[in-house]
Amino acid sequence: MAELKVFAPATVANLSCGFDVLGCCLDSVGDEMLIRKNNLNQVRITKITGQDLPMETDQNVAGVAVKALLKELNSNQGFDIEIDKKIKPGSGIGSSAASSAGAVYAVNKLLNEPFDAQKLISFAMQGELLASGNAHADNVAPALLGGFSLVRSYDPLEVLSLPVPQELVVVVLHPMIEIKTKDSRSIIKQNVSLKSAINQWGNLGALVSALYTEDYDLLGRSLQDEIVEPVRSILIPYFQDLKVLASENGALGFGISGSGPSVYALCKGEQIAKKVRDAIEVFYSNKYIDFELHLSGINKQGVKVL
Amino acid sequence: MAELKVFAPATVANLSCGFDVLGCCLDSVGDEMLIRKNNLNQVRITKITGQDLPMETDQNVAGVAVKALLKELNSNQGFDIEIDKKIKPGSGIGSSAASSAGAVYAVNKLLNEPFDAQKLISFAMQGELLASGNAHADNVAPALLGGFSLVRSYDPLEVLSLPVPQELVVVVLHPMIEIKTKDSRSIIKQNVSLKSAINQWGNLGALVSALYTEDYDLLGRSLQDEIVEPVRSILIPYFQDLKVLASENGALGFGISGSGPSVYALCKGEQIAKKVRDAIEVFYSNKYIDFELHLSGINKQGVKVL
Repeated sequence: MAELKVFAPATVANLSCGFDVLGCCLDSVGDEMLIRKNNLNQVRITKITGQDLPMETDQNVAGVAVKALLKELNSNQGFDIEIDKKIKPGSGIGSSAASSAGAVYAVNKLLNEPFDAQKLISFAMQGELLASGNAHADNVAPALLGGFSLVRSYDPLEVLSLPVPQELVVVVLHPMIEIKTKDSRSIIKQNVSLKSAINQWGNLGALVSALYTEDYDLLGRSLQDEIVEPVRSILIPYFQDLKVLASENGALGFGISGSGPSVYALCKGEQIAKKVRDAIEVFYSNKYIDFELHLSGINKQGVKVL
Repeated sequence: MAELKVFAPATVANLSCGFDVLGCCLDSVGDEMLIRKNNLNQVRITKITGQDLPMETDQNVAGVAVKALLKELNSNQGFDIEIDKKIKPGSGIGSSAASSAGAVYAVNKLLNEPFDAQKLISFAMQGELLASGNAHADNVAPALLGGFSLVRSYDPLEVLSLPVPQELVVVVLHPMIEIKTKDSRSIIKQNVSLKSAINQWGNLGALVSALYTEDYDLLGRSLQDEIVEPVRSILIPYFQDLKVLASENGALGFGISGSGPSVYALCKGEQIAKKVRDAIEVFYSNKYIDFELHLSGINKQGVKVL
């Protein structure tokens, strides 16, 4: 096999009480990537469509992630990477993670799978380090594993896959304002009250339980974040109005996707999800901010071969 | 039915990363209580054996808990409460919780069960408020529900029951020094680093997952507490040595039980648990501190009628 075309999915990280540890994978939003072996002993970004992103290998998240993989293998195999970028950079739904994850997934396949998914996550994290200054895993892990991923530990890296309740549908609103991950991180306080932290881990424990038991109501009650959301939501226009709107239209939970500006609503069933999406569309349409709306099931597979 | 005799179990709260939210119920350690209706319109503590504890109803945790229950019912039914106290107060394995839980469980039964278990927890918490100045639920909940209890929220109160992996056995060492819950709480910092909090909720999420999947190794890796244990363990003689000893002898995890001074080791299977218990016994025997050692399965039922 000399080339592979893959779908590299968008992801929602920092799922409310799961800040920095919990993300999930989307089904209907993602990039397409074509990865091809070359005989030049070089990793090259040969084509990017859809967005204006760096073509220099060391400045491109996919390039950096693939080089990390090849370094571990001591391989000088060359690859050409083409990216049809459909996820907007800076949108908060794992744009950089999709490119990193898609690239290492495809390269690993083309090399007859020397690495397992856990190891691929660590290579893709090198792309995240380039993109945001922080090698976080809560986008690349669900992009590679599918479903819900929980990062138990960074040192050593350990990521768990959690069950996906059948009827979950995600609505994502991307208000087209720019918030850089670096800026969005710097607004967060580095110390938190023990009381809030306790509430947060109580909720995260309950959320994990809800995923195992398919208890949608519990899932909704657990999707709270009293540590990061109160600060970061200030950067997102009409956040509180949107949250009320999502709740009024039946969403289980609503929060910031990644480091924003996108927001997500988790819903039970497509009917409610459409109602939530439509309500948000009407509300945001006269707010003089360009936006995109996505509606997606949870992608249980992660990166897919096309 | 005019009287009821119950077994009121000991519990291990503050299970490592589950500080303030996660506790479990023990099978072979607990008090016996006899609760009898009287015609005096009064709640009385008529007998306490085993320990020296307040006989005044309003100073006794069982008395206070039962009065909270009766107040909610607007009932002036009287009860006599006898307690054969086998759990030492101040030991850190839910001594006050056992009395509160046992009393409200029995009174509820004798009144034909007007309340469900969740509601009983809230009454028993009034006993905890008296005992420690803090109406925490992570001892009374597992005492009433059995198994592992997760407190998702205090306002409103919501407690989840989590599954119990079959082979879990708990070893508890009670070094007979006195640490009051109030003192043990005051040593804890009221602000924590976000980084530590994130590690803690990553571990708690993983611990909940491990209970559902019966993944003992994951359970062991998740039983970490980098927030409270580093501070509180200072109050417990030889804590670090005991932790190493437990690990060397095969324990999955080791930590402080409740607010100490008791410590617990969670083990897979009775054979390993006995090995851990014996090693701790040998180690502690020449340390000039009186101690008790318990070995117990997880009690899935909670308070039991005898």
